[in-house]
Amino acid sequence: MIAHEPDRLARVALSRLTEPGDLRLLSLVSELGAVTVYDHLHTDGDLDGAARDLAVRLSSVDPADDLARATRAGIRFVTPADDEWPVQLDDLADAGALQERGGVPIGLWVRGPQSLRDLASAVAVVGSRSATSYGGEVANEIAARCGSAGLPVVSGGAFGIDQSGHRGAIGVGAPTVAVLACGVDRVYPAAHAALFAHIGRTGALVSEAAPGWAPTRIRFLARNRLIAGLCRGTVIVEAAVRSGALNTANWTDRLSRVLMGVPGPVTSAPSQGVHQLLRRGGAMLVTCGDEVLEMVGASGSHVVIDERGPGRSRDELSVRQQQVLDAVPVAVGARSDSIARAAGIGLVEVRKTLGRLAGGGLVEQTADGWRLGEGGRA
Amino acid sequence: MIAHEPDRLARVALSRLTEPGDLRLLSLVSELGAVTVYDHLHTDGDLDGAARDLAVRLSSVDPADDLARATRAGIRFVTPADDEWPVQLDDLADAGALQERGGVPIGLWVRGPQSLRDLASAVAVVGSRSATSYGGEVANEIAARCGSAGLPVVSGGAFGIDQSGHRGAIGVGAPTVAVLACGVDRVYPAAHAALFAHIGRTGALVSEAAPGWAPTRIRFLARNRLIAGLCRGTVIVEAAVRSGALNTANWTDRLSRVLMGVPGPVTSAPSQGVHQLLRRGGAMLVTCGDEVLEMVGASGSHVVIDERGPGRSRDELSVRQQQVLDAVPVAVGARSDSIARAAGIGLVEVRKTLGRLAGGGLVEQTADGWRLGEGGRA
Repeated sequence: MIAHEPDRLARVALSRLTEPGDLRLLSLVSELGAVTVYDHLHTDGDLDGAARDLAVRLSSVDPADDLARATRAGIRFVTPADDEWPVQLDDLADAGALQERGGVPIGLWVRGPQSLRDLASAVAVVGSRSATSYGGEVANEIAARCGSAGLPVVSGGAFGIDQSGHRGAIGVGAPTVAVLACGVDRVYPAAHAALFAHIGRTGALVSEAAPGWAPTRIRFLARNRLIAGLCRGTVIVEAAVRSGALNTANWTDRLSRVLMGVPGPVTSAPSQGVHQLLRRGGAMLVTCGDEVLEMVGASGSHVVIDERGPGRSRDELSVRQQQVLDAVPVAVGARSDSIARAAGIGLVEVRKTLGRLAGGGLVEQTADGWRLGEGGRA
Repeated sequence: MIAHEPDRLARVALSRLTEPGDLRLLSLVSELGAVTVYDHLHTDGDLDGAARDLAVRLSSVDPADDLARATRAGIRFVTPADDEWPVQLDDLADAGALQERGGVPIGLWVRGPQSLRDLASAVAVVGSRSATSYGGEVANEIAARCGSAGLPVVSGGAFGIDQSGHRGAIGVGAPTVAVLACGVDRVYPAAHAALFAHIGRTGALVSEAAPGWAPTRIRFLARNRLIAGLCRGTVIVEAAVRSGALNTANWTDRLSRVLMGVPGPVTSAPSQGVHQLLRRGGAMLVTCGDEVLEMVGASGSHVVIDERGPGRSRDELSVRQQQVLDAVPVAVGARSDSIARAAGIGLVEVRKTLGRLAGGGLVEQTADGWRLGEGGRA
C-alpha cells in the first residue's frame, strides 16, 4: 500500500457516503484531511444531521472493494494527491456556495484516456437542452474551432447545446470531456449511449458522483461548478431565463473564469437567458470560435482579424477624390457643375476626377448626370 | 422686421452656400455669428478655398425670397434664436468631427407640426437599409413602445430599420420625426412618398440641407450627427459591418447619449455590426422597448424587473471586486480609467469588474461615469 492510500480510501468512502458539493463536509475535508473526517464519522456517527442513516451506510461501505470494481470497469478515482488532479479546482475552496452546492470535490471518478491535468486550457461550451438548430450550429462551430486550436472542449453530455459542443470537438478529432451528474458508468440521457462510449474511448467522462449513482437536481447543480471550475472559460450558447446553464455562468463568474455568451434573436426564448447575462455585464459577447479563442487562448496567439471585409477601393482614394465622391448624389444624377459647387472644387478638376472614379466603379454617368455607382455606396 | 431677422437671413443664405456639417464654417458661425460670417464672405469672397465660385453663388442667393418660398411650401427655418431650437444640438459645438462632418447646424429646415423643442426625450431607432424581417419587427416593437410611453421616435426615413421605426410610432399614434439628408421637400427614397407625407402631417421632416437639395454621401454623414444629437438615446437594430448606422452610433457615443444595440443571430450579416458595437463596449444590449425605456426614460419611471432577484451583497465580493468598489465615488461619477488609477488595478479588469458590480446593483453608470449604486452604499 503506497503512502497516500489511506487518504484515497477515505475519499472513496466519503464519496459514497455524501452528496456531491456538500460544502460543509468538503470544507472539513479541506481543513482536517479525508482520513480524520472519515474517522470522525465512525466516532460521532453524524455531522450535524448530514447523514441520518450514516451508521447503516458506513457498515456497507468497502472502499478498497469499490476501487477494485471501478478499476475493472475502466474507471479511476482521481484525488488531490494525484499528478492528474486539476489544481484549478482548488479555487472552489474559497468560492463559497451557490444553491447550497460548493467546495473542492473529494475526488473525481473518471473514465477515458484524457488526463484531467490537461484541462487548464479547456473551454466549456454549454447551454439549453431545448436548443434551436441555430444554437446547435453555433455551439458546433465554436467547439470545432477550439478543438482545432488544441483546446479541449468540456460540456455536460446533455441534449441540445452540450451534445453539439461535444460533437463539434469530435468532428475535428479533438478530445472532449463530459462532466456528468450521474456515475460515469451510467448513460443519461439514454439516447447518448454511443456519444458517451465515444467520449469514453477518446476523451473522458468525469463525475463527482460515485459509479452507479443516478442524476438528481442537486447533482446537476454540483456538477455545474466543476464544469466552470475546470475550464479557462465558459461559453453559454443558448439558455432560457431559468436554464441550468445560468448556474454554470454564475460559477464561471464567481471563479473569475472567462464568461462568454452567444447572442441570438431577441424573439427566441432560448437566447433570453444569454441576453440577460450580457446585459448585466461580466459576460463577453462572442459570435464565433475565433472570438472565443481570443478570450481564452494563449495571449496573442489568437488575434481576431477585425472584419471590415475586403478593403474597398474607397479607402485608397486621395483626399481630393474623396471630396468629389462625397458630393455625388446617391440616387438621381447631378451635373458636374453642381457637384463642383458641393465639393468646393474647380469644375475642370471635378470632371477629370469623376472620370477616374467612374473607371473604378465608384460613380456612374446617367442621363441626369453623375451619381454613385455600386462601389461608392459604402 | 424683428430684432433677429438679420441673423435668420444670414443663416438662410449660409445654408444655401455651404454643405451641411462643414465644421470649419460652423465653428466660425458659432464664434462670430452668422451675420459677421456672411458679411465676411461678401468681402473676402472665400474662406480658405471652401467655395471657389462663391462670388457667383453669392449673387444668386436671396434669403428673404428663399424664406418666403419655403413658407409657402409649409417649411420653416429654425435657428438657435428660436424658442423651438433643440438646445441639445449645441453639444455638437464641442464634439469635433467624424468623417469630416461636425458642428452645430446653422439652422434646420422643418416641415410638420412637431416642435423640435420636444425632442429632448426622443429615442432614435436606426439601422440597416437591408434589414431582415426580424430586424424590422424588433424596430417596430421598440418604436411602438417608446411612442406609447410618450417619447418621440426619430429616424432617417430610409428603407429597412428606419421605416420600421417610423411605422412603429405611427402605428400607436405617436409623433415621429425623419431627419433627412436631402431637402425636406424632396422624397428619398421615392417609394416613401406616402410615409413622408404622413410624417409631414403628424410629426416632422427635418434637414440641415436646404429645400431642393439632393441627398449625397456627406449629407448622410452630416445628417447622422443630428439624429444622434437630437435624441436622448439611439438604438441600432441591425447594421452590417460597414453600415452608416455605425456612424450614427459613433456620434451617439461621442455626444455621451445612450447607445443601445439589439443582438441577432451571429449568422446574420445585418447583425454583425451591432455585435461588434456590443463587443467593443459602450453600447448596451437591449432586447425590447421596455429595456430601451429603462435606459432613456425618466429616472425610475421605467424600471425593468430583474428576473434574477436581489443584488449581490457586499460581503460576497472577491477581494478584487472589493478593491474596485472601494475606489468608486459615492456621489459624482468617475470614469473607469480614474477608478483604475485609484484602485491600482489594470483598466481592462476594472471595466470588467465594474460591469459585474453593476449587475449586482452595487455601482451604476451615469453620464459622468461610474458611481455607487443603492446596493453599494451599505
